[in-house]
Amino acid sequence: VVLQAEVLYDFTAEPGNNELSVRRGETVTTVGGGWIEAQNSSGQTGLVPEGYLQVSITAVFSGYQWISRSWQITVGLYVLRFPFSKGPSPEVFLLAKPPANKVGPVWLYPLAPLDCVIADPKKESKLYGLKSFIEYQITPNTTNRPVNHRYKHFDWLYERLLEKFGSALPIPSLPDKQVTGRFEEDFIRMRMEQLQAWMTRMCRHPVVSQSEVFQLFLTYRDEKDWKAGKRKAEKDETVGPMIFSLLEPEAAELDTAEVEQKCEHYSRFTKSMDDGVRELLNVGNTHWKRCTGPLPKEYERIGRAFRNLSTVFISSRYPGEETLTDALTAAGQTYEEIAEIVAQQPQKDLHFLLETNNEYKGLLGCFPEIMAVHKAAVDKVKEADRLVSAGKITNNDRKLMNQRVSCMSYSLQAEMNHFHSNRIYDYNRVMQLYLQQQVTFYEQIADKLRGALSRFATL
Amino acid sequence: VVLQAEVLYDFTAEPGNNELSVRRGETVTTVGGGWIEAQNSSGQTGLVPEGYLQVSITAVFSGYQWISRSWQITVGLYVLRFPFSKGPSPEVFLLAKPPANKVGPVWLYPLAPLDCVIADPKKESKLYGLKSFIEYQITPNTTNRPVNHRYKHFDWLYERLLEKFGSALPIPSLPDKQVTGRFEEDFIRMRMEQLQAWMTRMCRHPVVSQSEVFQLFLTYRDEKDWKAGKRKAEKDETVGPMIFSLLEPEAAELDTAEVEQKCEHYSRFTKSMDDGVRELLNVGNTHWKRCTGPLPKEYERIGRAFRNLSTVFISSRYPGEETLTDALTAAGQTYEEIAEIVAQQPQKDLHFLLETNNEYKGLLGCFPEIMAVHKAAVDKVKEADRLVSAGKITNNDRKLMNQRVSCMSYSLQAEMNHFHSNRIYDYNRVMQLYLQQQVTFYEQIADKLRGALSRFATL
Repeated sequence: VVLQAEVLYDFTAEPGNNELSVRRGETVTTVGGGWIEAQNSSGQTGLVPEGYLQVSITAVFSGYQWISRSWQITVGLYVLRFPFSKGPSPEVFLLAKPPANKVGPVWLYPLAPLDCVIADPKKESKLYGLKSFIEYQITPNTTNRPVNHRYKHFDWLYERLLEKFGSALPIPSLPDKQVTGRFEEDFIRMRMEQLQAWMTRMCRHPVVSQSEVFQLFLTYRDEKDWKAGKRKAEKDETVGPMIFSLLEPEAAELDTAEVEQKCEHYSRFTKSMDDGVRELLNVGNTHWKRCTGPLPKEYERIGRAFRNLSTVFISSRYPGEETLTDALTAAGQTYEEIAEIVAQQPQKDLHFLLETNNEYKGLLGCFPEIMAVHKAAVDKVKEADRLVSAGKITNNDRKLMNQRVSCMSYSLQAEMNHFHSNRIYDYNRVMQLYLQQQVTFYEQIADKLRGALSRFATL
Repeated sequence: VVLQAEVLYDFTAEPGNNELSVRRGETVTTVGGGWIEAQNSSGQTGLVPEGYLQVSITAVFSGYQWISRSWQITVGLYVLRFPFSKGPSPEVFLLAKPPANKVGPVWLYPLAPLDCVIADPKKESKLYGLKSFIEYQITPNTTNRPVNHRYKHFDWLYERLLEKFGSALPIPSLPDKQVTGRFEEDFIRMRMEQLQAWMTRMCRHPVVSQSEVFQLFLTYRDEKDWKAGKRKAEKDETVGPMIFSLLEPEAAELDTAEVEQKCEHYSRFTKSMDDGVRELLNVGNTHWKRCTGPLPKEYERIGRAFRNLSTVFISSRYPGEETLTDALTAAGQTYEEIAEIVAQQPQKDLHFLLETNNEYKGLLGCFPEIMAVHKAAVDKVKEADRLVSAGKITNNDRKLMNQRVSCMSYSLQAEMNHFHSNRIYDYNRVMQLYLQQQVTFYEQIADKLRGALSRFATL
């Protein structure tokens, strides 16, 4: 694979480090990863930090040429290779597997995965304090330069992405807008966490992350830049099903029957996963309520009962029972501490399990629409023969229709593969986190109880 | 301390082992413990197995002589020393503390603590199968010879003990008689365990355990022996408040005001402990229901939700996710196993905590009656001056009354001290058992979860 890249910033190589000096605007060909090993037009090679390059702009490989900047799929036996990344997330390794030659069409992933960090929520006001809002600072890993946005802007971005990509890709909803309590610390923290999850998911998507509107959101230079970009995005006409027109239609046409069978399978899969996710959310929420409500209350009552008994024993005036009463008091305190640990635990583990499943509930909720758009196109193509016979369309029209529905099928398959590889990564990660935290939780309680036990007299 | 003992069975000393041959009916003086070092009337000393001796029949010590066979207290500064015991229970060491010089009157404890084992419940029938019942085998550590009794006999024993000692000592109720399900295995096991706890507590009481009726129950030779003993016990007239007449009245009289103050303190203590025990039983029973009901059901649901999701994932046809689906299935099974562990746990720890507290609830429930008997006597004595003035009783009568109420106060104090030392031992033991089992429980879950965690792919 040979990828060409446009240089965004000047970079001066340090001598002796195998680095390559590049100038803004220059086009280089990428060779390796990490710091990206690049070759300039004079044939010199050397390392350039990947953040300095906007990669995957034009990819030339084995027979297919993709011209769209933000809309690329690879087909057939092409194996995606990801360069080593020194970025914050190890997920590219997982996302890289399994290779395209086993799963069919996959999106062409950018060499350096985009990511961003949302931080530093600040209360700002407008109109001389009449309108207050929270502004978040968002820093993408590409420019490392923070931009500010309020919830309203995220919502604008969501609307644009939904409009543009909603027929082809799942664009999950933002966390709900909330009217009351908007400025409470806990709410702000939770909202920021949810916005972060949403942005991370969008950054991870090779099509969304490279779209102009998304890049605008993350990298606008100033207010003027932002306003102009907004106007342009709102006038974008390549939205809805027209998005498929961006796909290069030269890939081999697919067999309709096979495509239909695959779609049915996807539908069944997303439906069953939706059921599974809902059931997990259901029991998870019930468990949350128990763990933060009645269960710690009960441990507290047990602890109090032990301590009360100890107080009664102390009042006995019987000599020599200090060891017992001290130990019983300590046991009581231990159960009161356990109550606290139990009540705090869901925030440490169940929380992430539920958040991940909530995200997937959101993603899965988008698929019926995507499937319906695809099915409508397939049904139309199946009518084509009749329409040709009836003289309503030409043979050429039919051919074009076939090509277009084939594009849509490629897109759907690439999207399902994207969904699957993300799903494997996400569930693997969240289950490990959950179990790790659960192990720590039970170990912590066992330790506390061991301490309480040691205070009793050995007989 | 010098204790005299009557030899119950012939014992032939093995030469060279420092043993002493004794004959049934012989009286020896005890010197040491374990195997009891005894001195016979000719001044020879040597070891005799303690089960072969019925000890504490007559105790002669520092100025007081107690003549009753089954009703002895020690007063003042006398320190009880317990010999080393090779018996099954280490409790004598604990029960021996603190010494009498700190706590006031204490019962004179037998050198070798009595104990018995209830086992081998058998369904028996009478009247050619018309009446069926369960017969238990009870083996006391003194004779090591099993006797058989059915529940009805325990109930008879309870009635006798209550009648004879109920004004002075707490005689807790037997486990409830049950009409249906009497022959089910679980019920029989539970009933046997409760009868064992009841018998152990009675065996531990120095007055009850040495009473004729209790000894009859444990050591009757044959049906004839049993029937004759029963008739005799039912005709016993030294019952109710008359039990105090068995107490040697030569101990120094006690100050009434001080006694009354102590009694008030006992009353308050038993009342508060009763409240404490009931609260612990209350929360314990609630916790039991949660641990055997909704909590394991929830873990089961969590486990099932994980396994369902794994099944859905397997159906994806996406290659290379076996590690995830295997691990997710294993995690699901782990939570289903945890559900089982959680549901079984109360039987292993909470059970004993609740049983011990139930026993104490039973014991504490007896004290109001004992206190009331004592208070009535004290009130009567306070009237004595007036009655002497009115010529209704003589000065001698008043003196006798004083002596008698003093006996009752000694008895009450000894009983409270017995209660306290048992309470310290029992709660120390049951809390250790509970916490030990709880530690094991949480460790076991942490281990299981660690196993489940290890099956996920490391990123």
